[in-house]
Amino acid sequence: MTTETAIIERLRAVATDPAARGLRDDVAVLGDLVLTHDSIAEGVHYFPADPPASVGWKLVAVNLSDLAAKGAEPVAALLSLTLTGDEAWETAFLTGVEAACESYGLPLVGGDTIALSPGAPRVLGLTAIGRGGGSIPARGGGRPGDRLWLVGTVGDSAGGLAQLTQDTHATGPLVDIYRRPVPLLAPGRALAPHATAMMDVSDGLLIDLQRLCEASGCGAEVRLDALPLSRAFIAERGQDRRARLFAATGGDDYALLAGLPAECDPLSLSLPEGTTVTRIGTLVAGGGLALADAEGPVPLPEVLGHEHRSS
Amino acid sequence: MTTETAIIERLRAVATDPAARGLRDDVAVLGDLVLTHDSIAEGVHYFPADPPASVGWKLVAVNLSDLAAKGAEPVAALLSLTLTGDEAWETAFLTGVEAACESYGLPLVGGDTIALSPGAPRVLGLTAIGRGGGSIPARGGGRPGDRLWLVGTVGDSAGGLAQLTQDTHATGPLVDIYRRPVPLLAPGRALAPHATAMMDVSDGLLIDLQRLCEASGCGAEVRLDALPLSRAFIAERGQDRRARLFAATGGDDYALLAGLPAECDPLSLSLPEGTTVTRIGTLVAGGGLALADAEGPVPLPEVLGHEHRSS
Repeated sequence: MTTETAIIERLRAVATDPAARGLRDDVAVLGDLVLTHDSIAEGVHYFPADPPASVGWKLVAVNLSDLAAKGAEPVAALLSLTLTGDEAWETAFLTGVEAACESYGLPLVGGDTIALSPGAPRVLGLTAIGRGGGSIPARGGGRPGDRLWLVGTVGDSAGGLAQLTQDTHATGPLVDIYRRPVPLLAPGRALAPHATAMMDVSDGLLIDLQRLCEASGCGAEVRLDALPLSRAFIAERGQDRRARLFAATGGDDYALLAGLPAECDPLSLSLPEGTTVTRIGTLVAGGGLALADAEGPVPLPEVLGHEHRSS
Repeated sequence: MTTETAIIERLRAVATDPAARGLRDDVAVLGDLVLTHDSIAEGVHYFPADPPASVGWKLVAVNLSDLAAKGAEPVAALLSLTLTGDEAWETAFLTGVEAACESYGLPLVGGDTIALSPGAPRVLGLTAIGRGGGSIPARGGGRPGDRLWLVGTVGDSAGGLAQLTQDTHATGPLVDIYRRPVPLLAPGRALAPHATAMMDVSDGLLIDLQRLCEASGCGAEVRLDALPLSRAFIAERGQDRRARLFAATGGDDYALLAGLPAECDPLSLSLPEGTTVTRIGTLVAGGGLALADAEGPVPLPEVLGHEHRSS
């Protein structure tokens, strides 16, 4: 067991309050409030050379994505800001935070600002608070027979990250998506009343689906050739099995993964124009994931996503 | 203007939602919920050699102290944990977090855990959520004529810090108080319905009182010789003017500073046995602080406390 797994198991043993949802749901639920906190660290979650405004945008967006996955409306945020004396960086970072807060109606209401020792990598955090509707879907409510739907596309962000890893000055639509993910708040609200289980795809579709299955006590069959890929992704990496496995494990997608009863067709729901909603598979009895495409079964890749990027 | 002041001014310009209370109140107030987030950084807010359980305790206690100053009951917390691969440290740190959460009835319900690059100083954060009573006192409601009361003592923690700065292996009651502050939740609840203004003393009594005065649009007269000092403090540093100025500016006290109308005597309130409540001065018209002791006026020290430790 890695340190991180051991620590998270220990936290689970402590977090016995029902609001914690066993620390298996990305969020805590307190009455109708949905609470989430995500931090990002320089050199781990973003490149030191990334434009600071994009780092600020992403910090807000990844937290809003957790609210989106619970069908919650943004209510308020607390920012945890660390300063290292580079005022130009910090000012630009705040521009990105403010732009995302304004775009999605998230009022910044507090937090704290601390100075770090010179040279220390920044750690930046946000607590986002949302208000859920009548139903706040957990990860663990999926049932065999439910259909698996994905809102958004997968692979773009991982494609952008791969480009940046090759060349920190890379630009283009995939890099843009990596740096400025869009939280799918409106689709989340539309799906939440119907979803038996819902979560956002942050660590990789397959690893996140595995977590949904484990929490729900079932397995899943996924059609790899059904995965929604963007034109920009296909132009860059193609759409063969290898490209699709890359997209299914890359992470940072902030797509929404939902289990819906067979009788519920999300295409009949009131979704924002242009929303990509795709049936990608089915929840089944038993456990584990089974992949297939037009050529037949596809062996599961050894790495399903980012194992321990967040809890 | 320092970078930190400039950044905080910028945040204030953005945080226009009433829940933010102008970022001048340590907390945000959302309906009857009181929200606060404080982070601590290795090498800045604690010594790398500090016992990790005490670091965990202190992180929880300083956040609870913000709730105490608003008369709020602890409801839930989100922990932002960074891992650097030292599992023994991290496990002991969690022991301290758990002990403080258990002592004060604060359920841990979420947060996140991220890995830092090897060697990066830790940044540890907590979001604490409380439920306020009918009245959630701000800093800015003080009026000339209100009496200034202090719950708890000042100087102990700064005395402990001074000992540790001399010798990182120092021990004793002052070091204990520095490492394991006690949030004054019950006194805060008792005072909140009566206080015109209330805050906790974290950066130094004089600097925090100055902030209370600025927010309230008034000044204050303080009797330096009335400041409550512990026996351990007096044994270590004496109680002359110099020792009292040290105590009044040292910070990390987590005492409660309250303005109460002249007709309200806090000694008549239902406070836990053994609570130290001391009248230390009066709010007056105008602005600024005026210090005095039995020998007459005392010049204000140049440094009133920690200028920018938190926002």
